[in-house]
Amino acid sequence: MKIALGQLNFFVGDFEGNLRKMLAAVAEAKKQGADLVCFPELATCGYPPRDFLEFDDFIRRAENSVKELAKAAQGIAIAVGSPSRNPVVEGKDLFNSAYFLEDGQIKHIYNKALLPTYDIFDEYRYFEPAKEFKVVEFKGKKIALSICEDLWNLGNENPLYTIVPLDEMMPQKPDIIINLSASPFSYEHARERIRVSKANVDRYKLPLFYVNQVGAQTEIIFDGGSFAISPNGHVFEEMPYFEECVKTFDLEEVVENGRNNERPKEKIPLIHDALVLGIKDYFDKLGFKRAILGLSGGIDSAVVAVLAARALGEDDVRALLMPSQFSSAHSVNDARELAVNLGMQYDIIPIEPIFNSFAESLRPHFWGHGFDVTEENIQARIRGTLLMAVSNKFGNILLNTSNKSEMAVGYGTLYGDMCGGLSVIADVYKTEVYELARYINKDGEIIPENTIIKPPSAELRPDQKDSDSLPPYEILDAILYQYIEQHQGPNEIIAMGYDEAIVRRALRLVNTNEFKRYQAPPVLRVSPKAFGVGRRMPIVGKYLS
Amino acid sequence: MKIALGQLNFFVGDFEGNLRKMLAAVAEAKKQGADLVCFPELATCGYPPRDFLEFDDFIRRAENSVKELAKAAQGIAIAVGSPSRNPVVEGKDLFNSAYFLEDGQIKHIYNKALLPTYDIFDEYRYFEPAKEFKVVEFKGKKIALSICEDLWNLGNENPLYTIVPLDEMMPQKPDIIINLSASPFSYEHARERIRVSKANVDRYKLPLFYVNQVGAQTEIIFDGGSFAISPNGHVFEEMPYFEECVKTFDLEEVVENGRNNERPKEKIPLIHDALVLGIKDYFDKLGFKRAILGLSGGIDSAVVAVLAARALGEDDVRALLMPSQFSSAHSVNDARELAVNLGMQYDIIPIEPIFNSFAESLRPHFWGHGFDVTEENIQARIRGTLLMAVSNKFGNILLNTSNKSEMAVGYGTLYGDMCGGLSVIADVYKTEVYELARYINKDGEIIPENTIIKPPSAELRPDQKDSDSLPPYEILDAILYQYIEQHQGPNEIIAMGYDEAIVRRALRLVNTNEFKRYQAPPVLRVSPKAFGVGRRMPIVGKYLS
Repeated sequence: MKIALGQLNFFVGDFEGNLRKMLAAVAEAKKQGADLVCFPELATCGYPPRDFLEFDDFIRRAENSVKELAKAAQGIAIAVGSPSRNPVVEGKDLFNSAYFLEDGQIKHIYNKALLPTYDIFDEYRYFEPAKEFKVVEFKGKKIALSICEDLWNLGNENPLYTIVPLDEMMPQKPDIIINLSASPFSYEHARERIRVSKANVDRYKLPLFYVNQVGAQTEIIFDGGSFAISPNGHVFEEMPYFEECVKTFDLEEVVENGRNNERPKEKIPLIHDALVLGIKDYFDKLGFKRAILGLSGGIDSAVVAVLAARALGEDDVRALLMPSQFSSAHSVNDARELAVNLGMQYDIIPIEPIFNSFAESLRPHFWGHGFDVTEENIQARIRGTLLMAVSNKFGNILLNTSNKSEMAVGYGTLYGDMCGGLSVIADVYKTEVYELARYINKDGEIIPENTIIKPPSAELRPDQKDSDSLPPYEILDAILYQYIEQHQGPNEIIAMGYDEAIVRRALRLVNTNEFKRYQAPPVLRVSPKAFGVGRRMPIVGKYLS
Repeated sequence: MKIALGQLNFFVGDFEGNLRKMLAAVAEAKKQGADLVCFPELATCGYPPRDFLEFDDFIRRAENSVKELAKAAQGIAIAVGSPSRNPVVEGKDLFNSAYFLEDGQIKHIYNKALLPTYDIFDEYRYFEPAKEFKVVEFKGKKIALSICEDLWNLGNENPLYTIVPLDEMMPQKPDIIINLSASPFSYEHARERIRVSKANVDRYKLPLFYVNQVGAQTEIIFDGGSFAISPNGHVFEEMPYFEECVKTFDLEEVVENGRNNERPKEKIPLIHDALVLGIKDYFDKLGFKRAILGLSGGIDSAVVAVLAARALGEDDVRALLMPSQFSSAHSVNDARELAVNLGMQYDIIPIEPIFNSFAESLRPHFWGHGFDVTEENIQARIRGTLLMAVSNKFGNILLNTSNKSEMAVGYGTLYGDMCGGLSVIADVYKTEVYELARYINKDGEIIPENTIIKPPSAELRPDQKDSDSLPPYEILDAILYQYIEQHQGPNEIIAMGYDEAIVRRALRLVNTNEFKRYQAPPVLRVSPKAFGVGRRMPIVGKYLS
């Protein structure tokens, strides 16, 4: 038997487009001689559809796509993820289902049992968990269809669920496990995915075919990397990451395979590729062509400029350099050098005249008050307004250049440098931004060396340095990682050897700046815990604050 | 037996403060002669604690509060909501529990079975549902303890869950039902709560004591209104709405009661009181005293100014009037008249000089391009920057004055009039804002009549009117309500008799402006479906767009 995996880039809500892609992939799989082609979880509507699922009209359109796919299941079977209706009145109205289509018909529906409801996932918000577990017979083989999380209650010390769906199917003696997934990227998740899948193969001694979605849906990036695992636990093949692919596997070859073909996975290159895809899909799917960003001469905007140029082409990325009286000479030079290196249009708009005009208007109201954070913020907001003005006039979408460290501690101005349609590196700690810059420069200087080596500064007052108000980034980032990614409390982090005062201050800054992050742009997610939809904290709270 | 209900205003994460309040209420209940005092769901940590629950340190503090409360359970029993740990390794690590404390001990723990995971609720994100249902004996009576949603699988045509927790307890023949709740306000929810509770009483013929949290937690407002229902289905008493109250009920009196004492509930007064509490608690809990807002002379900012003055006192609310060359004479006059009526500080800062300064700086870049939405947005962003400057300089928190209609269709400027720490009326449709204004003026003119009767305008270009770009608000609001609150699709709404072109355009505007709302301030929730945490839509989506 030949099994094809259709690793496609879907678009949430674009039923026609998603269907068209799948029909083309069905044709391609047939050409490759496949008996069965498998598509990812909720492929008809794209994942995650979020509250669109609450609209009956949306479900009807998904059902219609399944019908159209069924018609195409002639001479080839199709496994595809799509929502289905719960026929029982008690419980949620929908299932997250895998349809098995054969001979123009819906032959079988498997419903997902384990519904991830943590981090960015909200599946129990919409779906009833399955209580029935049936395999489907196809060409003399029994297939255990499963959906994404259904594999994930194995291989963990503290399982989230009380059942293991494949255990329930084993009495029916399946020959093959197929998993339809929409498993998002984070820099360690591809490795985890294979580890967990191997735990399943170890337990059941069956070949496993895993098909994943690829492409970004707003902030969530799906990396593809679909795979087949042989019953002996070797990875037969990992499909490409960050691109579409339809590939057919011979079941016998997978079963008899003696080699482990796992790909190496390096954090910084993966993050780089994920961010480029994240930018590209945001623009492509929304129908935008051109980006704009502010170049300060600092490392954050430099890295974002490179990523944007790689995603959209340098002709479609435009930069504004907006020096103030507090900008050092090297700032404009470094920014200009980068724009020239990238071949990117740039314009210089000094902000001092506008700042003076604000100061003049506010003078009677600020009488007797000196320069403070107010005036720093006015500068940042003038820059935000100028960037948005060019964005509005010419249709360039503003890219936000905040990094995760400053987003965490609130070192940024709301409605100023926190503006933007998409936040490119706000899930990348400052220390990782440096690693990205070095990686970008690995084959020659693109980002000026001076941008990388100079001490970071917001340049909003004379001789300002980040280190005036923040601990060194190596320490800050390590503490933030323990708190944000690892969910460690203050006592646990202090016990690791970090200075108590620094730890308490860092955590307090994170918690009291929730109000800023609430209004931040969507953040491309590359870590296991990004700011945004996957991290839900009270703004009004009194905890570590 | 005498049962006290402790309807208190908790603060998420403030374990010491919440404990102190409960200990004072225990003393008060004893003074009132109570045998048992009941506190709301998750009272130790406040509801909703959101992802704070993922921190072990947070759970330890809640456990400590329960221990302290147990010590106080001498001569009186205490029922209190708090998280507890799941002793079984499979499944989520926590339960949402009701502790029954007696004689200095934890006597019984009931775990919540129905975990709301829809709209603003995320309980399955954190909690394992209970599978055990035991009543607790106290002074010769058997009490069926339950938590909030546990009552809600009755009285609905399409139940969300597959079990009814109280059905499971009935074989143990309980005498009393007690429900610990954290049930948020929306303008029809108090009525729903009583309807559903009566459906339970009708089924079990038992007295029901229902204690609710009061007070706002960021955007979610809890209205209190705890109650006791007699076995015959009559409401024995509804406790006050929007304020704290500790009240003791005599079980015999509740059982023998022959009168229905349900309070009347009117939508607009309820919304008014909820919004005042929402503003007050946002400031009180974050430790802020003073607010600022922009007064345009229009009805939205006028209503917000009144609500803010009622919540914080007129001395602590400051207004900026920021006319441009496009402002009509009446705008400043109407705004000034309102500020004078309220006795509120106001300052006038014309924005034309700053606008000219932006125009001057942008001139070389905008050569050959005329006045368009860019220049409209610059005006709004100058105003936002001025308001934030005063906010930063003097510590006044900016109140956002967007209404739900404009928030829905994106009729507002990101980083301009969409700025603010808290969005006061963005869950109130424009037509309802008018009703609120009339209600505010019911005993005499506070909001100038001209503000109410003049046609709404953003005044960002000459002679602009809202009706230039939007359908009449009566029609727009009705369509938005069907789509947002009622989840009706385009075909259903058109079938109700609305113009197809208007419906399709309105829905497209809602869906394509998700990116703006993503960066909006938290919105005080007064309807069954507010923008913000309870409505989760893709930004990058192709559905009705």
